[in-house]
Amino acid sequence: MSLLKRSATELVGTFWLVLGGCGSAVLAAAFPEVGIGLLGVSFAFGLTVLTMAFAIGHISGCHLNPAVSLGLVVGGRFPARELPAYIIAQVIGGVIAAALLYFIASGKPGFELAGGLASNGYGEHSPGGYSMAAGFVCELVMTAMFILIILGATDKRAPAGLAPIAIGLGLTLIHLISIPVTNTSVNPARSTGPALIVGGWAIQQLWMFWVAPLLGAVAGGVLYRWLGKEDN
Amino acid sequence: MSLLKRSATELVGTFWLVLGGCGSAVLAAAFPEVGIGLLGVSFAFGLTVLTMAFAIGHISGCHLNPAVSLGLVVGGRFPARELPAYIIAQVIGGVIAAALLYFIASGKPGFELAGGLASNGYGEHSPGGYSMAAGFVCELVMTAMFILIILGATDKRAPAGLAPIAIGLGLTLIHLISIPVTNTSVNPARSTGPALIVGGWAIQQLWMFWVAPLLGAVAGGVLYRWLGKEDN
Amino acid sequence: MSLLKRSATELVGTFWLVLGGCGSAVLAAAFPEVGIGLLGVSFAFGLTVLTMAFAIGHISGCHLNPAVSLGLVVGGRFPARELPAYIIAQVIGGVIAAALLYFIASGKPGFELAGGLASNGYGEHSPGGYSMAAGFVCELVMTAMFILIILGATDKRAPAGLAPIAIGLGLTLIHLISIPVTNTSVNPARSTGPALIVGGWAIQQLWMFWVAPLLGAVAGGVLYRWLGKEDN
Amino acid sequence: MSLLKRSATELVGTFWLVLGGCGSAVLAAAFPEVGIGLLGVSFAFGLTVLTMAFAIGHISGCHLNPAVSLGLVVGGRFPARELPAYIIAQVIGGVIAAALLYFIASGKPGFELAGGLASNGYGEHSPGGYSMAAGFVCELVMTAMFILIILGATDKRAPAGLAPIAIGLGLTLIHLISIPVTNTSVNPARSTGPALIVGGWAIQQLWMFWVAPLLGAVAGGVLYRWLGKEDN
Repeated sequence: MSLLKRSATELVGTFWLVLGGCGSAVLAAAFPEVGIGLLGVSFAFGLTVLTMAFAIGHISGCHLNPAVSLGLVVGGRFPARELPAYIIAQVIGGVIAAALLYFIASGKPGFELAGGLASNGYGEHSPGGYSMAAGFVCELVMTAMFILIILGATDKRAPAGLAPIAIGLGLTLIHLISIPVTNTSVNPARSTGPALIVGGWAIQQLWMFWVAPLLGAVAGGVLYRWLGKEDN
Repeated sequence: MSLLKRSATELVGTFWLVLGGCGSAVLAAAFPEVGIGLLGVSFAFGLTVLTMAFAIGHISGCHLNPAVSLGLVVGGRFPARELPAYIIAQVIGGVIAAALLYFIASGKPGFELAGGLASNGYGEHSPGGYSMAAGFVCELVMTAMFILIILGATDKRAPAGLAPIAIGLGLTLIHLISIPVTNTSVNPARSTGPALIVGGWAIQQLWMFWVAPLLGAVAGGVLYRWLGKEDN
Repeated sequence: MSLLKRSATELVGTFWLVLGGCGSAVLAAAFPEVGIGLLGVSFAFGLTVLTMAFAIGHISGCHLNPAVSLGLVVGGRFPARELPAYIIAQVIGGVIAAALLYFIASGKPGFELAGGLASNGYGEHSPGGYSMAAGFVCELVMTAMFILIILGATDKRAPAGLAPIAIGLGLTLIHLISIPVTNTSVNPARSTGPALIVGGWAIQQLWMFWVAPLLGAVAGGVLYRWLGKEDN
Repeated sequence: MSLLKRSATELVGTFWLVLGGCGSAVLAAAFPEVGIGLLGVSFAFGLTVLTMAFAIGHISGCHLNPAVSLGLVVGGRFPARELPAYIIAQVIGGVIAAALLYFIASGKPGFELAGGLASNGYGEHSPGGYSMAAGFVCELVMTAMFILIILGATDKRAPAGLAPIAIGLGLTLIHLISIPVTNTSVNPARSTGPALIVGGWAIQQLWMFWVAPLLGAVAGGVLYRWLGKEDN
């Protein structure tokens, strides 16, 4: 496949990740009496990746996330020269999704953008009021383990064809742990989409959701290269 | 298999989709204290498709949905001449399920049909009060992505045998996002069954749950044909 | 494997089904603030079957349910002469599980057996107050569809090895729909275990959770034989 | 792979089990209004194992649990001489995870360690107030069945490659049943990590979460050896 078509596929997949994950959070998490809660949002984020990994994995590899693309470069599975195109496509997909979500969400009388459109944050913008240090460490470790799961589950020695389940439910797990801390990013494109629509604090805090996931991705890539390498 | 037997299989499968999905919503979603909520309903809808895709996929293809059948025609996977038989069977299955659900639900003293039997709606009949425009766009986009998942996960290049998981959990995801907006259709047969039993507003608004999903199915089919086609 | 060893395996598996399913209902469903609710109970029942189907499917076939064994006889997959041994083992496993559950549950001060140990019931003993007719029809239809899922997912034409997922999550789905109606049986052995410990009304109503599931199993077996049979 | 590298892999995997499982419990279970509850915690524990089994199963076998390592020895699948290295690595991983979790959790103003960091307990430290006897029996039986699931799902006669799903969701199931009784251990390394950070009662009660799971592991290993052995 051409890089153009693969990048377009990443755009569509990341659009789905942000629309599904943030959409479930904004539209359904706190629905009165029967809302899906953080458990439902965690499943939604994970299932966006699970479904896309089955649907487009054979086209673009289904990264949907600049940190994943970087981690795959570090892990020796993706050429560095294609990184810019993938990352740009992922961010565009996230922005389009956030804009569409804003359109749908604002179709309800009384909707307020101040709710944040599921933006990521720390300190006073952490859902549970966690500090910047806690948030940074949490994002870094979660992303590192996410990359470890991705590199391990797609290893030739792992069961064939099942990586989408491991990776998708891995993202669900990460959300089950860390939504209260930062609203969970581990994905700069997912953070950038809503931040650009919401503006203000969401943009001021956006740096952390690029820096921590990307550092975590490098750590995870390095760790798996060592653990997974035959040594005798 | 003969078209008759395959259509009968679609009838049974769509019966299960509507009985299970709408049944969980009507009987169990708001059960006092321990109700399954919208998260449980989302899993129920998805699991009807997951279970049937494993059980009858090898007989009829397990569409269970006129929009899916149309999307498969657009995607080049299903012959247009069989579309009418499949759609008629799907609608009949949905209607029988809604009638049976009405029988069971009305076995509880105090049951009121006015609750809607999980019918789809917009505006004042949207669960969260979302506008017709928001509902239309939401249904169209959700269906398009559903078709993309189906075409991608059943592509010969995707992992063999696992499409039922991707497609079933894809429908779960779609419900996690959009139940508050329209009660989630993405399936004209699923909408028609309860609407015919409930009547009134449910029938007046039924047009949207044919038009938007069918348009979305065409969009999804066209999109996957382009993304998935080898270009070099 | 000898019939003795396969029957012992059915005993262990059915023990797990009743301990896990009824145990989650009794111990965890209504835990204050963070209880798992009917959604958690539905997953627990399904996961007992999913786990056992992977663990012992290659030993005994993992029926864990007299209605399933009967349905497999009707579907031509299990010899009728082995039915008595399997059913006896399943019932014994269910009774042992209910006794163990009673021991654990009564280790909490204030436990009252009157809560019912997750027994099945109708009328005033239906969780939601559903009538006997509604309960009977519901159990019959749910069991029929369960058998259809089992026969279809284990068909040679279905994806190999994945039937445990389809069947386990199929049981989850059935519980998502019907716990409010009858507490969901679709399994005479699951009903008999708690009923023997609880006594009284649970035993008086036990007939229905043998008759309806067994009739449903026959219906499901006949239906799949027709749908699944090549006709040209 | 060298024993060193495999042990390091067990350390990382057990780190993930404790961080993910206990982390979801401490950070997200009781989040106001939208908390994930015991159902979410159950999924989190299970998904740590599911994800690691896919990611590192081909490196170390992914035990992540001294009771599992012992059960595999009893079942004839793991050499006894490697048991000490695996167990030491697992415990270290659990302790590191508990320390990191303490760092993150204490980043929220008002955090109190007295909440217990998801430590296991009985009697007055059982979440539901269950007695020591109930807790002991529950842990022993749950671990025995867990080992049965592991040995069965990784049997050569079981479907290839799917054991991570059976085992991971098996751990989810065990938590759905038994969190109210002991907070669910079935894993001495998982219990030791938080206990060392919390101290006091958590250490005084720690003996039970070594003794009961290890006894259960032996029982499960013996049981599967008998059930699974061809006898004719």
